[in-house]
Amino acid sequence: MVSPYRLTVTELSHMMDDGLLTSSQLIESCLQRVSAREDAVQAWQHVDADGALEAARKCDNEPRIGPLHGIPVGVKDIFDTFDMPTTYGSPIYDGNQPKGDAACVALLRELGAIILGKTVSTEFATRYPGKTRNPWNLDHTPGGSSSGSAAAVADCMVPLALGTQTAGSVIRPSAYCGVVGYKPSFGYVNRTGVKPLSDSLDTVGFHARSVVDVGLIFSLLSGRPESALTASSANNRVWRIGVCRTPMWDSIDDEAQTLFEMTASRLANAGAQVEQIELDPAFMAGMASQDIISEFETWRSLAYERTRHADKLSGTLIDRLRRAGARSVADYNKARAHAEECRRGIAIVFESWDALLVPAVSGAAPIGLGDTGDPVFCKLWTLLHGPAITIPAGKSDRGLPLAVQLVGNIHTDNSLLRCAQWVESILAARLKTH
Amino acid sequence: MVSPYRLTVTELSHMMDDGLLTSSQLIESCLQRVSAREDAVQAWQHVDADGALEAARKCDNEPRIGPLHGIPVGVKDIFDTFDMPTTYGSPIYDGNQPKGDAACVALLRELGAIILGKTVSTEFATRYPGKTRNPWNLDHTPGGSSSGSAAAVADCMVPLALGTQTAGSVIRPSAYCGVVGYKPSFGYVNRTGVKPLSDSLDTVGFHARSVVDVGLIFSLLSGRPESALTASSANNRVWRIGVCRTPMWDSIDDEAQTLFEMTASRLANAGAQVEQIELDPAFMAGMASQDIISEFETWRSLAYERTRHADKLSGTLIDRLRRAGARSVADYNKARAHAEECRRGIAIVFESWDALLVPAVSGAAPIGLGDTGDPVFCKLWTLLHGPAITIPAGKSDRGLPLAVQLVGNIHTDNSLLRCAQWVESILAARLKTH
Repeated sequence: MVSPYRLTVTELSHMMDDGLLTSSQLIESCLQRVSAREDAVQAWQHVDADGALEAARKCDNEPRIGPLHGIPVGVKDIFDTFDMPTTYGSPIYDGNQPKGDAACVALLRELGAIILGKTVSTEFATRYPGKTRNPWNLDHTPGGSSSGSAAAVADCMVPLALGTQTAGSVIRPSAYCGVVGYKPSFGYVNRTGVKPLSDSLDTVGFHARSVVDVGLIFSLLSGRPESALTASSANNRVWRIGVCRTPMWDSIDDEAQTLFEMTASRLANAGAQVEQIELDPAFMAGMASQDIISEFETWRSLAYERTRHADKLSGTLIDRLRRAGARSVADYNKARAHAEECRRGIAIVFESWDALLVPAVSGAAPIGLGDTGDPVFCKLWTLLHGPAITIPAGKSDRGLPLAVQLVGNIHTDNSLLRCAQWVESILAARLKTH
Repeated sequence: MVSPYRLTVTELSHMMDDGLLTSSQLIESCLQRVSAREDAVQAWQHVDADGALEAARKCDNEPRIGPLHGIPVGVKDIFDTFDMPTTYGSPIYDGNQPKGDAACVALLRELGAIILGKTVSTEFATRYPGKTRNPWNLDHTPGGSSSGSAAAVADCMVPLALGTQTAGSVIRPSAYCGVVGYKPSFGYVNRTGVKPLSDSLDTVGFHARSVVDVGLIFSLLSGRPESALTASSANNRVWRIGVCRTPMWDSIDDEAQTLFEMTASRLANAGAQVEQIELDPAFMAGMASQDIISEFETWRSLAYERTRHADKLSGTLIDRLRRAGARSVADYNKARAHAEECRRGIAIVFESWDALLVPAVSGAAPIGLGDTGDPVFCKLWTLLHGPAITIPAGKSDRGLPLAVQLVGNIHTDNSLLRCAQWVESILAARLKTH
């Protein structure tokens, strides 16, 4: 029998329903995996082994109340937890013990899920990395800012984790670590108790080892039961998939370019309506608008840390804040107006397509731990507020994961998840565990 | 000489610039007023007299860095403060000491402002009242949820205070207490460190004793220097003011109806282009949409408190959460779509008007402290995301303040503030201190 820690949430939940697995057994299995691998991967800021085992015993003495009952979840350390310290990835908050849970954490617990621990975040979910390594090759970055969440799920320490995205912080680490990463439509998942960076962009997202699993947690946390996927939910239509290389195509390395083109062909061969499309170049200014909006808002969101604890901020963040403080309100207003214009424009594009297939990152995870890689392939889609999902699609020559991204129009999460489920089934790109 | 505690921020700042007043003298004056009046009014959750005096001495030893330098501010107790407990108006958070400041608080301190203390909020800024009384008549409600902020400013314990509005929580208490209350366009003022209720509606707002003062703090906190008002900024045009009784006109009492009509006449006589308008009845469904959106989101935002500390929630809030938990995502999606439609629709209305004159509340503050009054005249405007400002406009037979409200299209804060400054000058409704 496969060890429980290797299974998906959906598989685990079925086993529990069938009485083949207890939550205690599952938590023990995951904790063993953590013991075996954490020294190498460093995905966790804090693991609450005792708390998780106690919660599991409680679950095992109750009837299951739903698919997340007794399932362990990793929580990015920028979500508050009433029973575990929360550092927001910064030494300013060493030992900080919030008084309450973030809304998503409380909702997960209400659904019977068990918080296994807090996963490493970059500093305030910006660019300065934490200690986490890429589980596929420890010399490579796991990406960021949801570094620990993506690595912990990739390395099978936990089947499910919470992340957040302001530029590319869910999609990028998921792609680098070879897991499914999902950033829902803006505004669909409650952000209470999540350390803010950019109020008009910050979005809670999910990391798991299958599309069905991210659909499951999304449907439960957003209160959208209709978004839950079944085994056959993707099979009912011919998906219309626009293939968009984006103007940054030249910055993608050869093997990632080849994989991207191969993926498009495979989807066409499998019956999708696939066509190359080019976005109006006006959209590409959206990346600059994302920078301006994000920086203008971050300078204010981090006002306390910036004014009282500058000595504990990284040089990377101080440089960013210096740029951010110089952003004018005129530029910010222009960027927000441009974002609105782009959102109206992309809605017209999506009249012809269920999803766009776009690059997730420019290649496999770069070597080195000093930088979490470039979010350039995510910024526009985050700005547009629509759903985005990354799916593992292959391996690089060096054995690191490669991935593609599907993006949809705002409010079409149901449809995008179903399309992604179909794409996943075609790519049959299952995470090969170590 | 008038005691410093009675003056506006603008007056105080000029005196400080001219060397006629020190911050220490001002803080002492305000603290004396608090000592004299707090037993009756109960506006404060926590007063930091020592901290404020120490900050004032520091200010007095530095060159003034701007108009808020050395000025005391009251902060609604749903904003985190690193040096004062923050209860969010709930016994669940008795003694809660946040690790950091809310962004607005940190920005105020960066501008040299002095946090005098935390003002009473209703329970999580919902409807269950705190201890505060209306300073004009202690048997009457001050309104809510920013009860302490409005009462403290009205009673001259502090010249300026922070509030928040999700339905009518800045406008209503300001109107009942006879101060200027300003809710800016949605998204203009950073919400980091403010306890969330409804992510798509919550807005930081301001209470002061003049339009110029709310314009000042708004311009500084939102990074919009162009929104600061001068003595003459309102005089450059003929204001186009649509007078909208709203379909709830019949629920307004006689003296408030009379005052509203008189105000419209006065503005017309003073040279504004004034016309009665009727809103399309479709807008009125916006109040129901505000309820649905606010409740759907609040049920999730308060997930921790609801699931772990239900025994410490008021019966009022428990009832509301019961309704909220029954809101379906289908109704929520419909309400959000309706809100978008109304926002597009109101933009067309505002092509003809700089501002609409609308009721702020249905009359003077009701007697009794068990209820904070009805936000029915604010819900639609909060939903529409535009700026709203209330201005004292007279007194009821019983000597309680009466007020009107001006609302503008989203992003027209500059223009609405200038229009409000002109209206204020016409009404010449100065707060008569006790």
